[in-house]
Amino acid sequence: MELKMLKIDLNSDLGESFGHYSIGNDGEIINLVTSVNIACGFHAGDPDVMAQTVRKAEAAGIGIGAHPGYSDLQGFGRRRMNLSQTEVQHMVTYQVGALAAFTKSKKLHHVKPHGALYNAAAQDHDLALAICRGIQAVDAELPLYGLANSELITAAKEIGIPYAQEIFGDRNYEADGTLVARSKPNAVITDPLQIAKRVIRMIEDQAVVAINGEKVPLKTDSVCVHGDNQSALAIVKNLRAALEKEGIEAVTF
Amino acid sequence: MELKMLKIDLNSDLGESFGHYSIGNDGEIINLVTSVNIACGFHAGDPDVMAQTVRKAEAAGIGIGAHPGYSDLQGFGRRRMNLSQTEVQHMVTYQVGALAAFTKSKKLHHVKPHGALYNAAAQDHDLALAICRGIQAVDAELPLYGLANSELITAAKEIGIPYAQEIFGDRNYEADGTLVARSKPNAVITDPLQIAKRVIRMIEDQAVVAINGEKVPLKTDSVCVHGDNQSALAIVKNLRAALEKEGIEAVTF
Amino acid sequence: MELKMLKIDLNSDLGESFGHYSIGNDGEIINLVTSVNIACGFHAGDPDVMAQTVRKAEAAGIGIGAHPGYSDLQGFGRRRMNLSQTEVQHMVTYQVGALAAFTKSKKLHHVKPHGALYNAAAQDHDLALAICRGIQAVDAELPLYGLANSELITAAKEIGIPYAQEIFGDRNYEADGTLVARSKPNAVITDPLQIAKRVIRMIEDQAVVAINGEKVPLKTDSVCVHGDNQSALAIVKNLRAALEKEGIEAVTF
Amino acid sequence: MELKMLKIDLNSDLGESFGHYSIGNDGEIINLVTSVNIACGFHAGDPDVMAQTVRKAEAAGIGIGAHPGYSDLQGFGRRRMNLSQTEVQHMVTYQVGALAAFTKSKKLHHVKPHGALYNAAAQDHDLALAICRGIQAVDAELPLYGLANSELITAAKEIGIPYAQEIFGDRNYEADGTLVARSKPNAVITDPLQIAKRVIRMIEDQAVVAINGEKVPLKTDSVCVHGDNQSALAIVKNLRAALEKEGIEAVTF
Repeated sequence: MELKMLKIDLNSDLGESFGHYSIGNDGEIINLVTSVNIACGFHAGDPDVMAQTVRKAEAAGIGIGAHPGYSDLQGFGRRRMNLSQTEVQHMVTYQVGALAAFTKSKKLHHVKPHGALYNAAAQDHDLALAICRGIQAVDAELPLYGLANSELITAAKEIGIPYAQEIFGDRNYEADGTLVARSKPNAVITDPLQIAKRVIRMIEDQAVVAINGEKVPLKTDSVCVHGDNQSALAIVKNLRAALEKEGIEAVTF
Repeated sequence: MELKMLKIDLNSDLGESFGHYSIGNDGEIINLVTSVNIACGFHAGDPDVMAQTVRKAEAAGIGIGAHPGYSDLQGFGRRRMNLSQTEVQHMVTYQVGALAAFTKSKKLHHVKPHGALYNAAAQDHDLALAICRGIQAVDAELPLYGLANSELITAAKEIGIPYAQEIFGDRNYEADGTLVARSKPNAVITDPLQIAKRVIRMIEDQAVVAINGEKVPLKTDSVCVHGDNQSALAIVKNLRAALEKEGIEAVTF
Repeated sequence: MELKMLKIDLNSDLGESFGHYSIGNDGEIINLVTSVNIACGFHAGDPDVMAQTVRKAEAAGIGIGAHPGYSDLQGFGRRRMNLSQTEVQHMVTYQVGALAAFTKSKKLHHVKPHGALYNAAAQDHDLALAICRGIQAVDAELPLYGLANSELITAAKEIGIPYAQEIFGDRNYEADGTLVARSKPNAVITDPLQIAKRVIRMIEDQAVVAINGEKVPLKTDSVCVHGDNQSALAIVKNLRAALEKEGIEAVTF
Repeated sequence: MELKMLKIDLNSDLGESFGHYSIGNDGEIINLVTSVNIACGFHAGDPDVMAQTVRKAEAAGIGIGAHPGYSDLQGFGRRRMNLSQTEVQHMVTYQVGALAAFTKSKKLHHVKPHGALYNAAAQDHDLALAICRGIQAVDAELPLYGLANSELITAAKEIGIPYAQEIFGDRNYEADGTLVARSKPNAVITDPLQIAKRVIRMIEDQAVVAINGEKVPLKTDSVCVHGDNQSALAIVKNLRAALEKEGIEAVTF
């Protein structure tokens, strides 16, 4: 009898410093995750930060992903911009190519859109297609990381590029599988124990219990975690310990 | 008895439009040259312009080079910036990677620094080294285009990357092989016939006659030509005709 | 018996060149209009272009207005960005202050939002309020130019700043007083004679005949004209001649 | 017999955060100084940060100065750029106007160039003139803050604009009145007690003892202090206490 071990990828945003400005706890979070999404100089990051962050991630032996965003440093890529599909496609290709150039292998592990680009594309099929085309233009084998069940995944399937479905342990879900909007009171979960429990159940069930109690099927390839501050780091540390205890292996997707 | 045909590469800057702003005669010059230097979004160009320009150059079957410059759109990359060697290196890697991503082959033909970066590096060994390291980090087989006899060539040799020595048919040379400064009255040659004659002699002699009459040895791999306006285009058309008449083949380096 | 002469202001966008990039026919259009909207370095223009354009407009003795837009040079300010009201307010204050600094009097004649900012605010009351607050913070007596009957005018009234209602001679109107969307086939009028006739009737009637034949009341303080190309200039020249013939004086608002 | 109290202005850089990026201890340093130099969005700061910082400085009742720098956010304005005099002049006018727009009075207290612009202009007469002309174009009564004895002061005198001579308590001076270059080992003084003693002596003597022991005359209108970190704040706190004890009044220039 063979026992198949459950596995999960943990991804986090990295390399969001810029010039004289430093943010994030890259040194700590990099040891807690199995893949990273590195900013590409449009919404955060610059060529120097990118070079350093890639080096750190290569030393840690984790999956290096590009994290392309809108060209809006002041808004940190969190303000939606009304771009054409062609503009989005080329903007993604550009950023993915720029980041890949800093790696030793010249091959990235994945691409995960950032901020407003990610959120908008999760619901906008055309935008999601444009992102996928931008990735495919660089490397047809390069996987997209996208919100589980969202238009990003639909678009990746349609275009025919690989993808990983991403879940959020610190967010509640609606019955249709979308995230509860941040404007609603119960959008976010902050208790580390509850988050770890929830993630483990999502991985084991490949489903999430929505706020109305319904069980919603959810493919669980990667969990998005944050390293912005000490409480965020505490959540990740607790999650990793809980996964280990449960016998779920944290491995690069 | 075998006759070996003389050959020369003609290169020109392309893809310098930006957003709503259009400059250059890309459609015309592309048919007159054998390789192009495409702006990478820092001093000119944007992801959309880059995508279109790469497509045109691929259709024309000519050598596609990256044309990295200082991050100074307002100054068109023509104002020197006092960057560290590391900053220059990463700035070059970033731009080279971004442009390569738009090509079908993911391989560039060459890299030629732009404007103030090119001019400063021709005389500044450390700056030239930083540029070469930035290229090497992306692809150790990717050739640098640099001013013949300049620090750019010295640095490429030192680092061990391939290079092409570039000459200017419309510029006078000093006895030490450098270009006569634009601030001097006899810096530039404007007569198309004289330019063509001069280029042919440089190719055949692998040398240039300096303003003091001395003959200066000069390796002649590529001639830089311009397509900014109709008189620039006339110079290139005349040069191509003269080369053909002389039996010198215009081919990608 | 006293005859009161009808008057109208003609305004046009100016100073949209940037660095090495030149667009527009500023030298020609400046002599055909009575007020100008000068780009402020965010969507177009730079400090050098602003200085030169202000000097030209001062020499011509016409009304100098700021033309603030989204910080999006690549998109020429024509791509909507999802900014908060506070961000819009400060963005407008910044640009208005920067332009005013180049004038001799340190007083501007008006402020007209540009592109996507103008179009979005014409329909979005909160956005329009943010723009008006940004203007008011610089100078409570500084008039807004806004689309006649739009939210921009409503907001200016609400905030209590002066305003001018702007009409478009080359656009058809819906029965509710809004412009027919550019996506519809009959949005734009191109015949110079028809445009002139239409503008004169709008001024005399203070109303427009909508596409469904209804007459819609419309305050007519200023007509927006363009100088992008020779056919645009021909429209303005014809309009000025027609206004003169009709005895309508072209004067700064 | 009348006793005239000695007075000194303490100035510090403020408002250097940008978008999502926060730096400096603005809330603490603002209560320790009598005038501030606020970044104007080119090397640091953005319209939102500028609005907030001006509000805080107005609440504190201290002198509000513009702190214009090179358009180089990645380099934090610390990398020299080779601009023409005209470009520098307009760049300064633009930034000064933009900041003034956020003040209630629409009048600034002073202008102090930032970083590489300040350092280069201290030694480059033409650059210093360009800065002074840029200030004068906005307001001929607006004082320049410049390094004591430097080309900035010479240029202000030549152009005829007001100026304040600035000293550094934490830097050693050469016998010619210039600062000892940071590349030299004894450039910087770090001991708070020594710094306070030194500043007091400079104010009382209107001179500084250079590293070779010579006494160099130095007009002392303002002392530049920093709030970047806790040790910098400790230096300022100690200095203010020492000044008070010595009976030297800290007042806006």
